[in-house]
Amino acid sequence: MSEEISDVSNCNNHSTKKRKLNVEQGTNDVALDLSSQQEETSIHLKSHLNLSAIKFVRILNDLPQSKSVFIEGLYNEEKVVVIFEKTPFSEELVKQILKTTDNSLQQHFHNDVYGNYTTFPNPELNGVKTTIIHPATEKHIEKYSAQQSCIIEESAEDYNNITLPYIQSKQFSIDWVYNILEHKSETERIVFEDPDPVTGFILLPDLKWNGEQLSDLYLVAICHKRDIKSLRDLNGQHLPLLKNIKEKGKKAIIDKYNINASKLRIYVHYQPSYYHFHVHFTALYDAPGCRVERAHLLDSIIDNIELVDDYYQKCRLSFIVRTNDDLFDKYEEAKDR
Amino acid sequence: MSEEISDVSNCNNHSTKKRKLNVEQGTNDVALDLSSQQEETSIHLKSHLNLSAIKFVRILNDLPQSKSVFIEGLYNEEKVVVIFEKTPFSEELVKQILKTTDNSLQQHFHNDVYGNYTTFPNPELNGVKTTIIHPATEKHIEKYSAQQSCIIEESAEDYNNITLPYIQSKQFSIDWVYNILEHKSETERIVFEDPDPVTGFILLPDLKWNGEQLSDLYLVAICHKRDIKSLRDLNGQHLPLLKNIKEKGKKAIIDKYNINASKLRIYVHYQPSYYHFHVHFTALYDAPGCRVERAHLLDSIIDNIELVDDYYQKCRLSFIVRTNDDLFDKYEEAKDR
Repeated sequence: MSEEISDVSNCNNHSTKKRKLNVEQGTNDVALDLSSQQEETSIHLKSHLNLSAIKFVRILNDLPQSKSVFIEGLYNEEKVVVIFEKTPFSEELVKQILKTTDNSLQQHFHNDVYGNYTTFPNPELNGVKTTIIHPATEKHIEKYSAQQSCIIEESAEDYNNITLPYIQSKQFSIDWVYNILEHKSETERIVFEDPDPVTGFILLPDLKWNGEQLSDLYLVAICHKRDIKSLRDLNGQHLPLLKNIKEKGKKAIIDKYNINASKLRIYVHYQPSYYHFHVHFTALYDAPGCRVERAHLLDSIIDNIELVDDYYQKCRLSFIVRTNDDLFDKYEEAKDR
Repeated sequence: MSEEISDVSNCNNHSTKKRKLNVEQGTNDVALDLSSQQEETSIHLKSHLNLSAIKFVRILNDLPQSKSVFIEGLYNEEKVVVIFEKTPFSEELVKQILKTTDNSLQQHFHNDVYGNYTTFPNPELNGVKTTIIHPATEKHIEKYSAQQSCIIEESAEDYNNITLPYIQSKQFSIDWVYNILEHKSETERIVFEDPDPVTGFILLPDLKWNGEQLSDLYLVAICHKRDIKSLRDLNGQHLPLLKNIKEKGKKAIIDKYNINASKLRIYVHYQPSYYHFHVHFTALYDAPGCRVERAHLLDSIIDNIELVDDYYQKCRLSFIVRTNDDLFDKYEEAKDR
């Protein structure tokens, strides 16, 4: 489920930032000082769309944990996707809700010191972030629809017979990675570089992170070596690389962001989203892709290889695929054989 | 961060269920048929508390991902904890918001087919789940305050010198586990039992799951053997137990809930929340404790032991502790020595 969330947040990266801005500068300001609403309205244009003119067709996806919902609708006979997402609280918003909500507290139960209620804040204190895609194509509909996922248990044999030929046939472009390594792009974003061609790497903030607050700190170390596709290729000869990334990556982050090493989760994805070896460094928050079926702690990887040199050429690796992913089809075809 | 969420959801398990009820039966009904609001009000008593009489003191914790916030306040000179949590959408709610929201769409930006807005639904369509603890003790304040966590890298030596003595000194009561195994309680909740004293186990829904929808399916297999404290105790002699739990647990869940095996995540926690060996079976949702630093896939555990009989007596295991946890103190003390 959070795969979808992360996907959506990636796609809507700029709108997420925009949302934060709205909550901090928009809705709250309206709430705090109604006289400034005129000004707000002149900055934020009134929409040419009318929500009530959109005909509900169906729910495409519902993410109760993040309190968001993806809807297919019709507007003037054209398809439209509407995304509602409830917004986080802020201190100012909370103060206003406490101040202005008096008689609307609805009690559901009360037991000893614990009471459960529903509060109905004024609408301007409780805006809902709304994204409208209009006209929406079938691609949009598919992108925002709930995706079925399943776990694949990949044996060493499966890797060689199914996954590896798939990766090779796809020849995913990773020019953007080479651009970083060759200092052709994102040079100003580099936090640290060890230029050694064998054990070296470039460390930079992940695109999912705005590089500011530590709560969702997220950096990536991309190695200079170009022949390691993924975890499956690692063996004893890569121990110096792995240990170097761990130690120097950690040190660079501690130095720059002034945090404690015990606040860092250092891990590798399998399957990765691109087949050039890289390591994730995140704060201990619920980062996208930190669940057990995708993330492998760098410490465990080092341990496993020290214990058994060709551990990752032998072991089973479980990973999640979406059922509309080509790799899922390859595994289904293999089953039928 | 979601550690705190999961903790709160555990603590408020009954109130979470209550919330679902509210959204499904309460707020929505009010929304759909305003004439029934009288009835609702008579079922849900008006509160004796008044939000506006609560004086804001400070934010204890803020969980933007789940759109919830924990507040310390003062009510009649007494401490009070207020928890606001935005509620998920439902199909009926979405239909009502689309129908009734017309002129209040505030546009933030518009680019090609993408538009970003804030919508201000009618208050009765956008209630906020509110929990009030009054009077609140210091324990309550602490429980709902943001908790610092950190990762501990536990070597085999650390386990023997720090973690194991800690576990033994605490002598956590697991009578409730023995009550289940001895059929003294929760017998009606048992989904499957293999009574074998060496390889057998009892499978039942986890308390976090209401046992209904598959989206957050969560069952636990508790083994009959009483001498396995955790992952650290497992070795080659336990392979028949592990494989039995995997195969029979999976089959029982597939038979009863009619789902595909590839929709199941099967894993073990380290540290566990109680020191009697048990295995988690969840759907592929963002279950509490499924992140890489706490969850270990049963498949990988079996693989590792098959590869190296005493793998779990040798390897490093990383886990997260809260800085107010006794175990954290033990590790801090050990550092100082």
